[in-house]
Amino acid sequence: MARFALKVEYHGAPFNGWQRQKDQPSVQGAIEMALSKLQPGEHTIAAAGRTDTGVHGLGQVAHCDMDREWDPFRLSEALNYHLKPLPVAIVACARVEDDWHARFSAVERQYLFRILIRRAPATHDAGQVWQLNNDLDIDAMQQGADFLLGQHDFTTFRSSICQAQSPVKTLDELRVERVMGLSGPEVHFHVRARSFLHNQVRSFVGTLERVGAGAWAPEEVKHALDACDRSACGPVCPGHGLYLARVGYPEDPFRVR
Amino acid sequence: MARFALKVEYHGAPFNGWQRQKDQPSVQGAIEMALSKLQPGEHTIAAAGRTDTGVHGLGQVAHCDMDREWDPFRLSEALNYHLKPLPVAIVACARVEDDWHARFSAVERQYLFRILIRRAPATHDAGQVWQLNNDLDIDAMQQGADFLLGQHDFTTFRSSICQAQSPVKTLDELRVERVMGLSGPEVHFHVRARSFLHNQVRSFVGTLERVGAGAWAPEEVKHALDACDRSACGPVCPGHGLYLARVGYPEDPFRVR
Repeated sequence: MARFALKVEYHGAPFNGWQRQKDQPSVQGAIEMALSKLQPGEHTIAAAGRTDTGVHGLGQVAHCDMDREWDPFRLSEALNYHLKPLPVAIVACARVEDDWHARFSAVERQYLFRILIRRAPATHDAGQVWQLNNDLDIDAMQQGADFLLGQHDFTTFRSSICQAQSPVKTLDELRVERVMGLSGPEVHFHVRARSFLHNQVRSFVGTLERVGAGAWAPEEVKHALDACDRSACGPVCPGHGLYLARVGYPEDPFRVR
Repeated sequence: MARFALKVEYHGAPFNGWQRQKDQPSVQGAIEMALSKLQPGEHTIAAAGRTDTGVHGLGQVAHCDMDREWDPFRLSEALNYHLKPLPVAIVACARVEDDWHARFSAVERQYLFRILIRRAPATHDAGQVWQLNNDLDIDAMQQGADFLLGQHDFTTFRSSICQAQSPVKTLDELRVERVMGLSGPEVHFHVRARSFLHNQVRSFVGTLERVGAGAWAPEEVKHALDACDRSACGPVCPGHGLYLARVGYPEDPFRVR
């Protein structure tokens, strides 16, 4: 057996999320189908983050096991060939040890959330941004975000269907940034932690949007956090502005040596 | 009659270019169809630049004539409603004088051309960038580009079907820039002039790509220009990396007063 790490980029729109499901298109299912063209039989790949419906991948990481050795570059090229015309691409591929695991070896996940501020419907970025009509107060949102940094019980920002054993997580970064995009002003959220609860990033962004719109004072984010109560959360924002941007490992498997 | 200027954004992929054609989807046709929902009958709109198949609009400008007064904001909202689900959006609308003309009043056009440097197929940016496998030498391309600045006979960089009366144009800007995009490193070309010959920007970019790849020395761009011969041009690059970014007028009709 030979194990390979795959860095995967995808557009979330045509998929019911990452995870393979019966009779529903999924990113995992698409890649496993491409693998079966290279090596007949069933394939099961594991990923660092199981993104929801509509959520995008920029730097998702998965691993697959092959019966024989492959040149990693040739493997990625062959997979990309069979993935066409789906919006899924293997952007890097590396041979890893048999005990390396895309999910369990990961020590950090980074997400990007994009908001486009404008009235007219998005054209080039349709399905890739959460669109809002009115501008947001970046400084107020950053003040609110700073209350969330560090180790906390994040019950407030956790979906009721979350399967994590503990609601305690450590948030390492939540940076709010104004960016000028091709279609207009955007607000980007950069969110980084070892691991996340289900819907945690979307719960953060939905809550901080309330702060940016002036409906919440920044301190109310702290009150919501302290409440440890799902009903204290702001509205959960839509998934199509969310990107799994990067997965960190103790040693980067894709580093060019 | 009331004349309105429209700033139009569109994704070029589903259209056979800007200009209305029988039995072919066009951006002009889509907007005229939306106008006919607001005011029954035939509509003919004029635009600053007639973009080719696959070419995108970010800041295309057109004008339309309506039988009655409209609040410009309400007109743009109504048009966007009827344009759905097509990737065409009216991003600004303004009342203008009856003799104001989107094409003939324009004094400047600015184009953006995007190249994405990477091997794996584009996902989020599919159809919105020209993709190349190998990196380009930005400095060499800028050296080549600088020979094109100013007033010249641009016969070399003009499509054989170009209808302009003279091949002499004045190029005001051709700036090559490296940009980090979400999907990888990009090279952007910013090209600005009062007006352009048909395929001029794509002929520039295709020729400069040869310089960036090391196949041409920068000085060969000058030799090609001086030849005044279409066969001296490098390969014309594909249209789907090209955006009509901005149209300039003596007074900006969309300026918020």
